[in-house]
Amino acid sequence: MSLDGFVAGPDPTLEEPLGRNGDSLHEWVLPTRAWREAHGLEGGEDNEESEMVREGIASVGASVMGRKMFSGGSGPWESDPRSHGWWGDEPPFHTPVFVLTHHAREPEEMEGGTTFVFVTEGIESAVEQARAAAGERDVAIAGGANVIQQALSAGLVDELRLHVAPTLLGGGTRLFGEDRPVKLEATRVLSSPRAAHFRLDVTS
Amino acid sequence: MSLDGFVAGPDPTLEEPLGRNGDSLHEWVLPTRAWREAHGLEGGEDNEESEMVREGIASVGASVMGRKMFSGGSGPWESDPRSHGWWGDEPPFHTPVFVLTHHAREPEEMEGGTTFVFVTEGIESAVEQARAAAGERDVAIAGGANVIQQALSAGLVDELRLHVAPTLLGGGTRLFGEDRPVKLEATRVLSSPRAAHFRLDVTS
Repeated sequence: MSLDGFVAGPDPTLEEPLGRNGDSLHEWVLPTRAWREAHGLEGGEDNEESEMVREGIASVGASVMGRKMFSGGSGPWESDPRSHGWWGDEPPFHTPVFVLTHHAREPEEMEGGTTFVFVTEGIESAVEQARAAAGERDVAIAGGANVIQQALSAGLVDELRLHVAPTLLGGGTRLFGEDRPVKLEATRVLSSPRAAHFRLDVTS
Repeated sequence: MSLDGFVAGPDPTLEEPLGRNGDSLHEWVLPTRAWREAHGLEGGEDNEESEMVREGIASVGASVMGRKMFSGGSGPWESDPRSHGWWGDEPPFHTPVFVLTHHAREPEEMEGGTTFVFVTEGIESAVEQARAAAGERDVAIAGGANVIQQALSAGLVDELRLHVAPTLLGGGTRLFGEDRPVKLEATRVLSSPRAAHFRLDVTS
């Protein structure tokens, strides 16, 4: 999230899916060794942030994401240029990913352990299916903002892991709405020169 | 600031000037020894946050604030129940404070080195007068949000010092608008279990 509360900048396109300057949100994670490993890259920095990323990845047994986050498109899959997702043949999830959509479709098994499962029955069903798939591990509500808001409103979120980058986007997609905020309790706050990281229990 | 970007909660009143749950923004600072000293209180915690607060206070030679932050009121001073400010006879500033108002008034010298000077010619004049008063030290644009936005828009801000508390307010007064964001470069990010603290150069 940016300091002004956006998780994507203004005017997202297929070329710039995070909107104008949206990439600045994720600059902190790119040099971490843990992120690079998950994306099949070598090298990277081994530090407290990388350790946090590694723990985060290891804790997740299944993810839930919205159609926009999956492909950037909408409507029937036949006309979606990114209908197999943004991530090529071997996506970085390595676990089942439940994609919320209005357009039914068979599951798609990718290389490296990622299976995309398409769910048309809404957020509660997606989280339920993800829970069954995750076993002992956690379900991550990966995004976008709308899906996270749906999950928060439905009382389905136990914990928020928020990464705040020192940038202003001036517009775009807000993570938090203005209705009925949940109560949070910080269990860990960590920082580096590139970002601040909050782990928060949702207490109501 | 809250995680959802508010520097005051909804429905501020004279009894609750920071709005609903607004006090949760400042919980992190109350136990620091440096804050307690500035407010004439003993004890407190000596830690990295307290050191940051101490440095912040020591660096300021004069402040600028809005009428609302000063008294919570508006209109002529005669009908303002807080026309001497929120802070009693010995305010915690110990330096000149330039208050933006539409209602001219003689300066008011308080105990402990604080003098309130009332400025009716707008933000540029207030900052210019504060600069002259501050000498070698910095001018702090103390708030509220509207005054900080005016100063940012006028190109008068070199550095932001932002304190993000792990709370959601769900409404209230936003620090950042949605027009023409400034560019920021983090020079320090510090955290404790109670908050994250950003020091940012304004680079455009």
